[in-house]
Amino acid sequence: MKARVTIMLKQGVLDPQGKAIEHALTALDFDGVNEARQGKIIELELTETDQAKATAQVTDMCEKLLANTVIERYDIELMD
Amino acid sequence: MKARVTIMLKQGVLDPQGKAIEHALTALDFDGVNEARQGKIIELELTETDQAKATAQVTDMCEKLLANTVIERYDIELMD
Repeated sequence: MKARVTIMLKQGVLDPQGKAIEHALTALDFDGVNEARQGKIIELELTETDQAKATAQVTDMCEKLLANTVIERYDIELMD
Repeated sequence: MKARVTIMLKQGVLDPQGKAIEHALTALDFDGVNEARQGKIIELELTETDQAKATAQVTDMCEKLLANTVIERYDIELMD
């Protein structure tokens, strides 16, 4: 089973990477971008086949390692 | 309109961040992870309201700035 974890900074947390992208897009004459925010995505290939167990396992990984829950929020998506 | 760009390393390109995550998960006694790959996600808030034009604009941004198309592939997803 494949799991996709999307980690974004929480609303209100300053996102310098996103700001840098905004400035770079403006410098390249791309208008019409009001805001850019950057996050990360982690794709995991799991041996677990049970959906509920896989979700629990990945949630545990996010809490302990993958995300900094003080400033980041995460979403877990399971694929087949 | 909101656009979400997902950028991942192409298959076959070495992913040191993914490897580091694999090792860290193993060190924390998380078994059953065969592979981990890390990518980035960029959320853009666009003023453009036409779907086709927005897709064309974001594709152009990816080709020129957001993705390194030699080693990375990107997916564009539009929301509302």
